[in-house]
Amino acid sequence: MGDNDMILEFSLLIILLGSLVALFYSLFRSRWIFRQPVHDAKLQKIGKAISSGAMAFLSREYRVLVPFVLIAAAFLAVGNKGVLRYQALSFVLGASFSALAGFIGMKVATASNSRTTEAARTGINEALNIAFSGGSVMGMTVVGLALTGVFIILGVSLVLTDITVLYLRESILPILSGFSLGASSMALFARVGGGIFTKAADVGADLVGKVEAGIPEDDHRNPATIADNVGDNVGDVAGMGADLFESYVGSLVGAMILGAAVEGTASLQMKLVTFPLLIAAAGVLASLIGIKFVKVRKGQSPQVALNKGTFGAAILAALFVLIMSLLYFRGEIFPVSMSPIRIFLSALLGMAAGVSIGLITEYFTGVDTRPVNAIVKACETGPATTLITGMGMGMLSALPPVLIIVTAILAGDQLSGLYGIAIAALGMLMTLGVQLAVDAYGPIADNAGGLAEMAEFPRAVREITDELDAVGNTTAAIGKGFAIGSAALTSLILFTAFREQLGLKVIDLMDVKTLSGVLIGAVIPYLFSSMAMNAIGDAAFAMIEEVRRQFREKPGILDETEEPDYERCVDISTSAALKKMILPGLTAALTPVLVGFTGGVFMLSGLLIGVTVSGVVLAIFMSNAGGAWDNAKKMIESGAAGGKGSAAHKASVVGDTVGDPFKDTAGPSLNILIKLMAVVSLVIAPMLKSFWRL
Amino acid sequence: MGDNDMILEFSLLIILLGSLVALFYSLFRSRWIFRQPVHDAKLQKIGKAISSGAMAFLSREYRVLVPFVLIAAAFLAVGNKGVLRYQALSFVLGASFSALAGFIGMKVATASNSRTTEAARTGINEALNIAFSGGSVMGMTVVGLALTGVFIILGVSLVLTDITVLYLRESILPILSGFSLGASSMALFARVGGGIFTKAADVGADLVGKVEAGIPEDDHRNPATIADNVGDNVGDVAGMGADLFESYVGSLVGAMILGAAVEGTASLQMKLVTFPLLIAAAGVLASLIGIKFVKVRKGQSPQVALNKGTFGAAILAALFVLIMSLLYFRGEIFPVSMSPIRIFLSALLGMAAGVSIGLITEYFTGVDTRPVNAIVKACETGPATTLITGMGMGMLSALPPVLIIVTAILAGDQLSGLYGIAIAALGMLMTLGVQLAVDAYGPIADNAGGLAEMAEFPRAVREITDELDAVGNTTAAIGKGFAIGSAALTSLILFTAFREQLGLKVIDLMDVKTLSGVLIGAVIPYLFSSMAMNAIGDAAFAMIEEVRRQFREKPGILDETEEPDYERCVDISTSAALKKMILPGLTAALTPVLVGFTGGVFMLSGLLIGVTVSGVVLAIFMSNAGGAWDNAKKMIESGAAGGKGSAAHKASVVGDTVGDPFKDTAGPSLNILIKLMAVVSLVIAPMLKSFWRL
Repeated sequence: MGDNDMILEFSLLIILLGSLVALFYSLFRSRWIFRQPVHDAKLQKIGKAISSGAMAFLSREYRVLVPFVLIAAAFLAVGNKGVLRYQALSFVLGASFSALAGFIGMKVATASNSRTTEAARTGINEALNIAFSGGSVMGMTVVGLALTGVFIILGVSLVLTDITVLYLRESILPILSGFSLGASSMALFARVGGGIFTKAADVGADLVGKVEAGIPEDDHRNPATIADNVGDNVGDVAGMGADLFESYVGSLVGAMILGAAVEGTASLQMKLVTFPLLIAAAGVLASLIGIKFVKVRKGQSPQVALNKGTFGAAILAALFVLIMSLLYFRGEIFPVSMSPIRIFLSALLGMAAGVSIGLITEYFTGVDTRPVNAIVKACETGPATTLITGMGMGMLSALPPVLIIVTAILAGDQLSGLYGIAIAALGMLMTLGVQLAVDAYGPIADNAGGLAEMAEFPRAVREITDELDAVGNTTAAIGKGFAIGSAALTSLILFTAFREQLGLKVIDLMDVKTLSGVLIGAVIPYLFSSMAMNAIGDAAFAMIEEVRRQFREKPGILDETEEPDYERCVDISTSAALKKMILPGLTAALTPVLVGFTGGVFMLSGLLIGVTVSGVVLAIFMSNAGGAWDNAKKMIESGAAGGKGSAAHKASVVGDTVGDPFKDTAGPSLNILIKLMAVVSLVIAPMLKSFWRL
Repeated sequence: MGDNDMILEFSLLIILLGSLVALFYSLFRSRWIFRQPVHDAKLQKIGKAISSGAMAFLSREYRVLVPFVLIAAAFLAVGNKGVLRYQALSFVLGASFSALAGFIGMKVATASNSRTTEAARTGINEALNIAFSGGSVMGMTVVGLALTGVFIILGVSLVLTDITVLYLRESILPILSGFSLGASSMALFARVGGGIFTKAADVGADLVGKVEAGIPEDDHRNPATIADNVGDNVGDVAGMGADLFESYVGSLVGAMILGAAVEGTASLQMKLVTFPLLIAAAGVLASLIGIKFVKVRKGQSPQVALNKGTFGAAILAALFVLIMSLLYFRGEIFPVSMSPIRIFLSALLGMAAGVSIGLITEYFTGVDTRPVNAIVKACETGPATTLITGMGMGMLSALPPVLIIVTAILAGDQLSGLYGIAIAALGMLMTLGVQLAVDAYGPIADNAGGLAEMAEFPRAVREITDELDAVGNTTAAIGKGFAIGSAALTSLILFTAFREQLGLKVIDLMDVKTLSGVLIGAVIPYLFSSMAMNAIGDAAFAMIEEVRRQFREKPGILDETEEPDYERCVDISTSAALKKMILPGLTAALTPVLVGFTGGVFMLSGLLIGVTVSGVVLAIFMSNAGGAWDNAKKMIESGAAGGKGSAAHKASVVGDTVGDPFKDTAGPSLNILIKLMAVVSLVIAPMLKSFWRL
């Protein structure tokens, strides 16, 4: 291969294949899930309530967001010149595909949960099969839609014109970054909105139901219980899906842009630009094989099955990249300090970094580790020491991941320059299909347990779902590590792409404007987290009032002579989430625009760096502190430090309640925030260039 | 004046006068304090116990630090070449003067507290007079010793050689930065050590005494009560004194270095270098007059008196700077965009920024403000919502100060370039004498109240000391604003001076090493806070065990048939503080050395920026969240949300206990951390230059 068009056509063919494989898998697997039976009438009814609550939330959310999407698209159409106006279209495409992925994932997840409960009557393997299938549909849909979007944009471009590397760099890739922007915007709103919904419902259900009324978690007499389970879906499933959709697209587009920036022959450049597509397609195949590995043998823990799937896919993926890089780049002349093997090593570096961050996350947040044991011990002296110790551990836990990210940056740069860093980021997300399957499997199993409780299934069923729920932790922690690591690297890549677009040779840290930008940037994650936490506070307060009101006005709820009004609680969470997600979302999206057009490109550059470094550290701190409190509580509930009902248990509940918005709302939203601000800047770069006459 | 030596001699004469005025004031005022009577025997005995506990801690602390100071001095003597070896001496001088300031301040403060209690029997004016005099001795000693140190170094240099601006820039100012390093190192250890001491004692006294044994705060039956009161002195008085000593020296030295970097005639440069000295001397005079304003008239609140002192001094100081800049720079030719009026405006800008940050601090942490009321309301739904709301508010509170600091940077730069920023930072600290008097007055009044309680004085005495304690808040908040603002600006100035020393033209944010440095820098404040918080956790645990042991083994303590062992508790806090302050202190001091010699100067530059921005934001968040929880508790104790003993009160105590290490240990230490790392880098800059052959 040497002709540019041929290279592009070949890689387009490959991602078309990749996206078709992923989407067809999703289609057939979800049809299989829907065919599974739910015999129990009560289970059916409750399952339907959760499903329709979740879908109602999603469609209301999308309806709220439509005007924003259209306004932003109009801004892109008006602000841009020439062919770049198509950014508006690709932006809408990105937003729609993200919404679609969320919609499909949610539909399947809310169908899988009750079927998992039903299957748990038969056995753990049957239940695992359904829960994991639900997750795998989510994973493959996200990957498939992302690749489809990229295929459409590149394919249409190829049909309309002859594509040179220069044209790619100056027109097509900027348009593609519009797709990424659409995905990021939706992701931020989905994460924040879903996060507020789920935590408001959770806090309301726990504080009034468990603590005040003294009924168990997931008891059907609790008016907030349906809202709580809907929340798990809209927060953990739809929120996470949108989140990783945008990570995946962001790292793909970022790597393509940096590929076009490498000095070399036209054919080498074209191959470097398209290689990320090949990596993605190979990742689909590896994920699919990995998913097939997930089967429990008799007497084996489900954890072994999940590990086989995740690690199997990763090893295969690495092998694919090695082979592809040797074949694809054969005969190309590389600049010094770049080679096919070095590109392969960059991808491997990314995977290693992601796994390491994951293992460290597991160490700081897992059951029965030294840090979590310290928190359990601190619970014995009350909530204050619980919080101080948890925060101390959370802060400490930020150091190793940062050092790993720094190592990945420096080593990636040594291997293949900025392109190496980009490939490392992409390497982390290459097997997203199976990673997301494991991630989304958790909430499905959790929900299945809640359903077993609400539908008053026998204890044995709940035990199976509990076992399923418990095992995903390590693999999920590794997934989190990939999310954090790739967020940091991707936002740096997008930042680099932004600088390329503007043609800035140097961004001097001594410039007072740059410095001011860094300082402002550093405070934005705090502002954003504050908004998220205050929103949860307000929404939870409304929920608490409502649940108290129902118990007061319908005293028959507790002895089951009256029916609680579940819908009213779902409605409160929905309205609060939709109202409260707007301000943080707009702050994130508009700050770069404001700073870019008033403070200039150097202040904006500083802002991006400030947001990234401060956001990464704050996000790790919040996520890990929250995770550690969660598991400290679980350890105490399994008998540590006096067990359930002890003073230590009460202290651990306080820790967990504080940790919930940390780990499920503010923390993960920050990962999107830093990328969203970078991609907004990248997209407005051409406008800034003409505005400031650079 | 045109001759360089004459300019230097004149300004040396002025700071000599300034330092003598300050030191003589301290001498006479402290003799007056010691002459005041303490009639009550029990008060005398307890006062002595606190005083000797505090002095014992200080001398043990200094003894622990001597080896570190000597090793660092040896490193400076060996690592440097030529005349720069004298850095070792000036470093030791800086460390010794800081220790001396702490020693004198503590001696006087622990003499003032019991005398304040005694005087409160006569009336509020008498009590205020002693408490404030104690604070003013602290303030004036700090300022006087700082100026004396600078005078000695510059004076000796002038005697030994003829001083040109070049020689100043390349030799004398680097030696002077050794003085600043000595001050910073001591400050960090003093803050961390004092912070650990006071919080361990506080938590131990509260959790076991108040909560478990049910005896009131400051009850003499509590074994930890003396340790608690000793802690207030070593943390709030000695820690704060060392902290502000280093801020003052740092901003003075930083401004001198930047003055030498302005392009212009030799005489203009010399005047720019020496002008900060004139500002400092004028500040002494203004502070002294301000201190004289502090007198309570019949029927007036003590707050009015304190305000008159602080604001009177500030207005006078501004006036002095205006006159001096017009006279001193008469006939000099300035570069474009610089002028005497612009230099004056820079100082004014700094003052305005400091006051604004202070008022915002007051808004977010004061009694009965909107944010604190929100926390009070959240206390009603338990400790979890208390913590979530408090953290949300604390995070939000970081935004306005950061915007003010950014404004000060940008406006200072517009007014007189980097020199303008330096003068703005110095402007904030110009009237440090009176600011520190107000700051140190608070803990003295607080201690006096504790003494009244322990010595079982009549209720009326306690009411007077409570009133004194309550009023310093707004003025103290403004002092905090000055500390935060000046820390941010000073560390940027020191960073600039560092770059000047290395001769780096540009520090490119796109360089992966710079970026990696920023990322590592951003995590250091978290690491440091985590160490501080874990240290407090461990120390408090030991204290809790000890107090429980005493109550268990000496059951007669509660009915006063047995005497508690106060000394044992003082000893536990002392040992814990001295042991636990080493690791965070060394981390702060050694990280820049390690990064500079292994990662290079660009990574080190990035590190400094990362530490500064992340540290400033985290410090404001922690300080304000802690302050807000503190006042929320006080509001509830005065009757809000159900008052003392209610569930809301319990929640507020949890908030306050979490907030204590935030606002009294980790938060303020971060202000020193960012400057210490900058000044370490500045001091090792010549070594780095030859190591990396720049």
